[in-house]
Amino acid sequence: MAQDMTLLWGSGSPPCWRLMIALEEKSLQGYNHKLLSFEKKEHKSQEVLDINPRGQLPSFKHGDVIVNESYAACFYLESRFKSQGNKLIPESPAEQALMYQRMFEGLTFYEKLNAVVYYEWYVPEGERHDSALKRNKEALTAELGLWEGYLQKLGQGSYLAGPSFSLADVTVFPTVATAFRFGLCAERYPHLAAYHAALKERPSIKASWPPHWLENPQGQDTLTHI
Amino acid sequence: MAQDMTLLWGSGSPPCWRLMIALEEKSLQGYNHKLLSFEKKEHKSQEVLDINPRGQLPSFKHGDVIVNESYAACFYLESRFKSQGNKLIPESPAEQALMYQRMFEGLTFYEKLNAVVYYEWYVPEGERHDSALKRNKEALTAELGLWEGYLQKLGQGSYLAGPSFSLADVTVFPTVATAFRFGLCAERYPHLAAYHAALKERPSIKASWPPHWLENPQGQDTLTHI
Repeated sequence: MAQDMTLLWGSGSPPCWRLMIALEEKSLQGYNHKLLSFEKKEHKSQEVLDINPRGQLPSFKHGDVIVNESYAACFYLESRFKSQGNKLIPESPAEQALMYQRMFEGLTFYEKLNAVVYYEWYVPEGERHDSALKRNKEALTAELGLWEGYLQKLGQGSYLAGPSFSLADVTVFPTVATAFRFGLCAERYPHLAAYHAALKERPSIKASWPPHWLENPQGQDTLTHI
Repeated sequence: MAQDMTLLWGSGSPPCWRLMIALEEKSLQGYNHKLLSFEKKEHKSQEVLDINPRGQLPSFKHGDVIVNESYAACFYLESRFKSQGNKLIPESPAEQALMYQRMFEGLTFYEKLNAVVYYEWYVPEGERHDSALKRNKEALTAELGLWEGYLQKLGQGSYLAGPSFSLADVTVFPTVATAFRFGLCAERYPHLAAYHAALKERPSIKASWPPHWLENPQGQDTLTHI
């Protein structure tokens, strides 16, 4: 099906996962792929740098076309394979507007999540401050409150931009799943938890679930008190 | 023309500027707009919060549709007014792929620029480290090198995604202009400087040039040595 595509990826990376969900949704199974290790710094290997001068995953190639940024690749696949698989951009202007809006708010959500769960990864030891981590946690709490409210307002069973699954879900679901993987409390965020539970069963998401989460279903407890 | 649109904005904010360029390109002049002051914290006023719970500018409304994220608003306007004004998404799949790729790399460019020019704005006094600012400057230098190389490769007179002006230029030009406003050296980045000089004359960009830059054409020298 998609033998002219190559994906270099890392397990549990939300940007990689976004692209893998999009590939499944567009019925583009059968692409070449290689799982690389962030721990072994394989994302800085020559194989990656040849496609992606930033040395980041995902790195993605379709024929001669290179699209490494996960959002870019999702837009590209939807445009290039418009009538194949599931349509990921809704027709209605209002739903489309909400989809775009949530997609880009999703980048802030992802950034605020990272600023807490990967604080020690991003900030060298001598530059860490309890005050900064506390502020990051407060910002993440406010952010989670926004998303909980969005889902509550849309009502049970809704996707992030309304009645249809869209690029908003493709791009933001991996962030939601990562929050729960790091111990987010389902009782405190019931609408996010219901959304997470429902989408976990979607074939594209099941098929692309991070392999190391399957091997070790026990996550961390970083966010238990958020 | 666009009397059912309202924009709340701040002068010199790249996200606001992106949206204003898009409005000009799509021949949507005549929208309602209100210039607010970041210094006076007017972006946290009730007027903004009513449209944008994040208290950020731009805040943008078209009829009942609210799209505040600048990239989201650009996509929305291009989709909603496809056959009006200039087409901002190229037809060719390869050019389209490059456009998406550069648009999203553009967010990293913007972030790395901010991490240097607004370091003291973002980081509270007690949490600042020379080592962090040095690292941020190195990251910005590497980032600028990438963009300089992209433009060099495309050749003189090219836009960011090839022969046509596209959403890549709409979204990334304000970041390039901000870098020069903060003293980026044209001799050290000749391709970025040529791109900047050429696009400054484009009607959509002239019409939306930050008013306080016009009032005070002298910028800062933060980036002189980058």
